[in-house]
Amino acid sequence: GIGLNRQKSVTYGNRGMTLEEDINISNQYYLTNDIAVIHKKPTPVQIVNVDYPKRSAAKITEAYFKKASTTDYNGLYKGKYIDFEAKETRHRSSLPLKNFHGHQVAHMKNVQKHSGICFIIVKFSSDGDIFLLDAGILVEYWDLQHQGGRKSIPKAEVVRRGHSIPSGYLPRIDYLKVLNDVYL
Amino acid sequence: GIGLNRQKSVTYGNRGMTLEEDINISNQYYLTNDIAVIHKKPTPVQIVNVDYPKRSAAKITEAYFKKASTTDYNGLYKGKYIDFEAKETRHRSSLPLKNFHGHQVAHMKNVQKHSGICFIIVKFSSDGDIFLLDAGILVEYWDLQHQGGRKSIPKAEVVRRGHSIPSGYLPRIDYLKVLNDVYL
Ligand SMILES: [Mg+2]
Ligand SMILES: [Mg+2]
Repeated sequence: GIGLNRQKSVTYGNRGMTLEEDINISNQYYLTNDIAVIHKKPTPVQIVNVDYPKRSAAKITEAYFKKASTTDYNGLYKGKYIDFEAKETRHRSSLPLKNFHGHQVAHMKNVQKHSGICFIIVKFSSDGDIFLLDAGILVEYWDLQHQGGRKSIPKAEVVRRGHSIPSGYLPRIDYLKVLNDVYL
Repeated sequence: GIGLNRQKSVTYGNRGMTLEEDINISNQYYLTNDIAVIHKKPTPVQIVNVDYPKRSAAKITEAYFKKASTTDYNGLYKGKYIDFEAKETRHRSSLPLKNFHGHQVAHMKNVQKHSGICFIIVKFSSDGDIFLLDAGILVEYWDLQHQGGRKSIPKAEVVRRGHSIPSGYLPRIDYLKVLNDVYL
């Protein structure tokens, strides 16, 4: 009955969307409202075998996930090239560097070297806090870990050097507002 | 023996690389030499079923090709957002518009509206000629076809309003040289 439905929808609301879903919906909002053109890249897949049945669509029957060589998202905002990676962590007090691959970090360095705007969006799922952190800070920690540095970025550092992204209704995660303040 | 090997390599040389392979190699050259950061997006795939065997990699056992909602390539050159689609046609005297999807053309319009650099690279495989054509011209023909216009862009128009891309050794297809002359 009604009670059950209400409870279901509360449960659904509590579950929360993933960070990626929220960002995709925000990007759709930005696109529809002519604010920015930012898309998630397709998941990279190594296709090994495809069947071509008569009279129906080609069917991939064997494929494997590949490591991404770039970041999840890129696009265009106010004439600028934008590039970022989204990461959600259950860790309460740090973002482990093992959430990134060497190729991704190298890509971020390249983007910054070529004057693109590059950052990460981090969500601490324990409390729902979301931050925008410049890719340069990730690169700093990434490089230091190979010289005996720590294997994660402390949340305190993300709070201090990053920028809190308020979450709202439309867009859900208004990271372009933060970009405006920080980069533009 | 040697004769056979030589013949094989000649055959391989004659076969020719696809336009996409040539562009990917050129992009790798641009990246390695710190000229630009431009990548092909992964092929979009709708994943329906995945097996997770013990002690080995997740295997996708059912998936289908999806229509791309954007273009094949994007990235960053001299601080500018670059976005393009590559198309090869066997038609001798025109590029049929059915090589494009409505979503792709809409995406190209959006990129140009937001001050990105957007174009197509067309290869006429009958004679190997390669051109860079501003996306605005594709959009023109795309929109006109729905008002009784023709369903293809004449090669003569590509020659007149586009820009020939010389092919060489490294990079194979130096489209950034043309970009320099036309857009920057
Ligand atoms: Mg991610
Ligand atoms: Mg293509």
